[in-house]
Amino acid sequence: MPASRIRLFPLLDRIVSADQAASLVEDGMVVGMSGFTRAGDAKAVPLAMARRAQLDPFKITLVTGASLGKDVDRVLTEAHVLARRMPFQSDPTLRAAINRGEVMFIDQHLSETVEHLRSGQLGPMDYAIIEAAAITEDCGIVPTTSVGNSASFAILAKKLIIEINLGQPAELEGLHDIYIPTKRPTREPIPVVSCDSRIGLSSVQVDPAKIAAIVVTRQSDSPAVLDAPDAETNAIASHLIRFFGREVAEGRLDLSLNPLQAGIGNIANAVLAGLADGPFHSLRMYSEVLQDSTFDLLDTGKLLFASGSSITLSAAYAERIFGDINRYKDRLVLRPQEISNHPEVIRRLGIIAINTALEFDIYGNVNSTHVNGTQMVNGIGGSGDFARNAYLSIFVTKSLAKGGAISSVVPMVSHVDHTEHDVDILVTDVGLADLRELAPRERARAIIANCVHRSYRAQLNNYFERALVLGGHTPHVLGEALSWHLRRQTTGTMMDSANLEEN
Amino acid sequence: MPASRIRLFPLLDRIVSADQAASLVEDGMVVGMSGFTRAGDAKAVPLAMARRAQLDPFKITLVTGASLGKDVDRVLTEAHVLARRMPFQSDPTLRAAINRGEVMFIDQHLSETVEHLRSGQLGPMDYAIIEAAAITEDCGIVPTTSVGNSASFAILAKKLIIEINLGQPAELEGLHDIYIPTKRPTREPIPVVSCDSRIGLSSVQVDPAKIAAIVVTRQSDSPAVLDAPDAETNAIASHLIRFFGREVAEGRLDLSLNPLQAGIGNIANAVLAGLADGPFHSLRMYSEVLQDSTFDLLDTGKLLFASGSSITLSAAYAERIFGDINRYKDRLVLRPQEISNHPEVIRRLGIIAINTALEFDIYGNVNSTHVNGTQMVNGIGGSGDFARNAYLSIFVTKSLAKGGAISSVVPMVSHVDHTEHDVDILVTDVGLADLRELAPRERARAIIANCVHRSYRAQLNNYFERALVLGGHTPHVLGEALSWHLRRQTTGTMMDSANLEEN
Ligand SMILES: CC(C)(COP(=O)(O)OP(=O)(O)OC[C@H]1O[C@@H](n2cnc3c(N)ncnc32)[C@H](O)[C@@H]1OP(=O)(O)O)[C@@H](O)C(=O)NCCC(=O)NCCS
Ligand SMILES: CC(C)(COP(=O)(O)OP(=O)(O)OC[C@H]1O[C@@H](n2cnc3c(N)ncnc32)[C@H](O)[C@@H]1OP(=O)(O)O)[C@@H](O)C(=O)NCCC(=O)NCCS
Repeated sequence: MPASRIRLFPLLDRIVSADQAASLVEDGMVVGMSGFTRAGDAKAVPLAMARRAQLDPFKITLVTGASLGKDVDRVLTEAHVLARRMPFQSDPTLRAAINRGEVMFIDQHLSETVEHLRSGQLGPMDYAIIEAAAITEDCGIVPTTSVGNSASFAILAKKLIIEINLGQPAELEGLHDIYIPTKRPTREPIPVVSCDSRIGLSSVQVDPAKIAAIVVTRQSDSPAVLDAPDAETNAIASHLIRFFGREVAEGRLDLSLNPLQAGIGNIANAVLAGLADGPFHSLRMYSEVLQDSTFDLLDTGKLLFASGSSITLSAAYAERIFGDINRYKDRLVLRPQEISNHPEVIRRLGIIAINTALEFDIYGNVNSTHVNGTQMVNGIGGSGDFARNAYLSIFVTKSLAKGGAISSVVPMVSHVDHTEHDVDILVTDVGLADLRELAPRERARAIIANCVHRSYRAQLNNYFERALVLGGHTPHVLGEALSWHLRRQTTGTMMDSANLEEN
Repeated sequence: MPASRIRLFPLLDRIVSADQAASLVEDGMVVGMSGFTRAGDAKAVPLAMARRAQLDPFKITLVTGASLGKDVDRVLTEAHVLARRMPFQSDPTLRAAINRGEVMFIDQHLSETVEHLRSGQLGPMDYAIIEAAAITEDCGIVPTTSVGNSASFAILAKKLIIEINLGQPAELEGLHDIYIPTKRPTREPIPVVSCDSRIGLSSVQVDPAKIAAIVVTRQSDSPAVLDAPDAETNAIASHLIRFFGREVAEGRLDLSLNPLQAGIGNIANAVLAGLADGPFHSLRMYSEVLQDSTFDLLDTGKLLFASGSSITLSAAYAERIFGDINRYKDRLVLRPQEISNHPEVIRRLGIIAINTALEFDIYGNVNSTHVNGTQMVNGIGGSGDFARNAYLSIFVTKSLAKGGAISSVVPMVSHVDHTEHDVDILVTDVGLADLRELAPRERARAIIANCVHRSYRAQLNNYFERALVLGGHTPHVLGEALSWHLRRQTTGTMMDSANLEEN
């Protein structure tokens, strides 16, 4: 192993196997792990924990930054190691266990988890298992492709297990900006005043006595899997690009827009790709996850700077970008998710936030998490941190799901993650509804006219017209408000019989 | 009129009657008015506008801080002056017009309205009508018993009408701290770091050329009407006080607690009164509205300092407090509502936020605004600003409403203002549920065990047990989720027939 990776030499004695490290974790412990949207997760010790649990069953509370690489949550779930899991996940096996009620999942705003830990509302944390690119001379833990919650976990946990990942480029050192807010109620302002503000250190300072074990690994992050843009994602992107153009024309924004946040996934990627072709320039990002499209925009020179908490790339991009990360280092920073998602900073910078909805309703309430109000998909993630405090809060979704059996625009969402108060703009492949300064009845007309797929438009309009007869500030036919979801459950489609005949 | 009230003498020429001032406002204009929870509202010009509209019909968009004195919204509604109204109201006549769809009401987080105005998403604002205690030599507008949105309205509106209210004590001058955040995206941190931080000026600096008219008035604010504490509000207060005691015992808080925010109304008042008897001391408030109980706590010395955006008192307290306001001035500050409710400051100070719910559900989602999901009561007000970013987000409500025909704890709320992510503690007269770090199924058990009235407990438990059979992270019987509300509409009570027989 290169000496540069563990520069505090006495720590070399703490190198053990993943199995040895995993044996330290005891039943009932609260364990923090690095990892944010597949990036920078601990890779060896969690799998060793799962192996151990086959022989020696034990359960833990697992707290991470966000989702982990593609195997970790699955393997831990299959080994029945997870009693409790927070604050986000996106693994199909774990998701099923959560929905069966086997794993208690606490779905949390991503900026808040370490606040709870710091104030003793969560914890105490027994172990933090953190992937690092290096440990410096003064016991600074250098994160890898994400910061997530790793910094606060490392500082607050009783003991640390470090995975030094030789497969992650040593040149990641210097990319991170580690700043920890001071204790409340005497906290100072967080001094980020622009996307490129650097306010902290390049590593996480810990007491070497806390490092219980070091494990050496060489495995890359799980690559992101992005679908190619399709007609719907392209249509969403182009509605949004046109909208930005109008905001510029009306003098509310200039061509550099405001700092951008974009959720993960195909649509966000398509929107960012769309920005590359428009008249916009000197863009900046203040986001959570930096994806392939961020680097395309940096390459074209349209994007000046990107701040995030993780870099999650497809396999091809990962090879290219991480092979040459120094080329980008002066235009990138990775921050703790508490800072990337901090309400204080989001409000201050005036962010344009673009996140994905599962469904929204005629009044602009958004469901990002629960199918039929009951089945968890992934979690709220950072969408609430951004949507609440953004300058513009935008939600996007395809107008239809499951081949048209589901309309993503419904009378009433079956679960609310973002209330109408936090939603400015809604976009589907059909069009864009600008809800700013509209009352609920006006919102409904804008959404029905612009967002719902034509195969559901008459059906939705019929609901709204009958609701109007019953009256109220936010008219509903309460007995039918969730009937579309019920119909999908019983008949397989949200279409009512009159509509089915026509379509 | 005392010369001290208009100290920029050339402005004396602009004194006109309320009717003359009202004639300046034209059909279709956007008008801002001072006023926050009855305090410091413009009193003469709005009524003159209503008189004028009887002969010369016209309509405006009316934007305020929050609710106005008890007649203003009623009279304007009856005169059909209001086309649009934001961001909050609490008048029965206006409420009915909103629910009939006659007035378009935009229900907004109270910290956000002036952000929208500043960024051109709302407005432009044609007139601001602001009550003032005085106009200084350098054209500083000195607010009266509230700041609300008055400062930004005065700065951003094209023209100003000032009501100098001689009925408000001249000694109010010096109480206010007027700070306006700088323009985004180059905004600086808001430098409030404790409840007593003073970061601005004592008046709102405006260009004298913008002052179109000055009207002299002498009328007091409408007094607050508080019900005497009853068995339920006392029970809620005592559950909460016991909870605070436990938090102190467990070392998460000390006896000075964290800065407190309390919503308006009887329950909040009872909780604050309860604090006076407990072991707590050196308390601080960082709230919106300062009520009678705030002054009791200041008088006993338990409360060191109170920061708010308005002072709303009962008639007896108003006479006593405003008659001797100098006694309190070094322990009080009134701020723009953008600052009293600012997410940045709320998160920084680690506020304990206590707000009132209409109803909440077994998973902890809170409805603060809509009866049966459709009929607006008042609006979300500042509850969202506080709940989202508080150190502890507490919602309180009586377990029953309408003599037991309504359970305030329901299977699924009919409207969501605060999602489960933003709710830590729920309290009713029955007890307190601590939801921190609980998964939905655990939340349901805690809420059913601790919060629901015994007359509905078996019925609610029955719902939950059947939902569990259907499964999901957040189990629901979707076809029955809103059935309690429907039953209340059709039969007059939420009780099902089996339950009715037993009770
Ligand atoms: C909402 C969210 C699940 C959408 O995911 P996505 O991959 O972008 O969107 P897709 O359209 O591909 O939908 C994902 C799945 O949900 C299904 N779906 C979409 N809308 C649906 C609806 N209204 N009802 C039921 N299922 C729906 C899709 O069919 C698809 O199913 P599949 O995986 O079986 O093919 C995802 O964005 C998310 O988890 N968001 C919350 C967290 C967040 O916003 N973070 C942002 C900060 S990073
Ligand atoms: C929620 C809110 C309406 C409660 O008001 P309150 O006066 O404290 O509470 P009350 O228990 O007296 O209830 C008010 C009315 O709602 C009714 N009510 C209460 N719970 C109800 C329920 N679940 N369903 C229907 N009606 C209900 C009461 O019967 C009462 O009706 P009445 O006026 O006809 O007697 C009020 O707190 C509010 O508007 N909150 C939103 C704004 C806010 O939180 N601001 C906080 C920062 S200042």
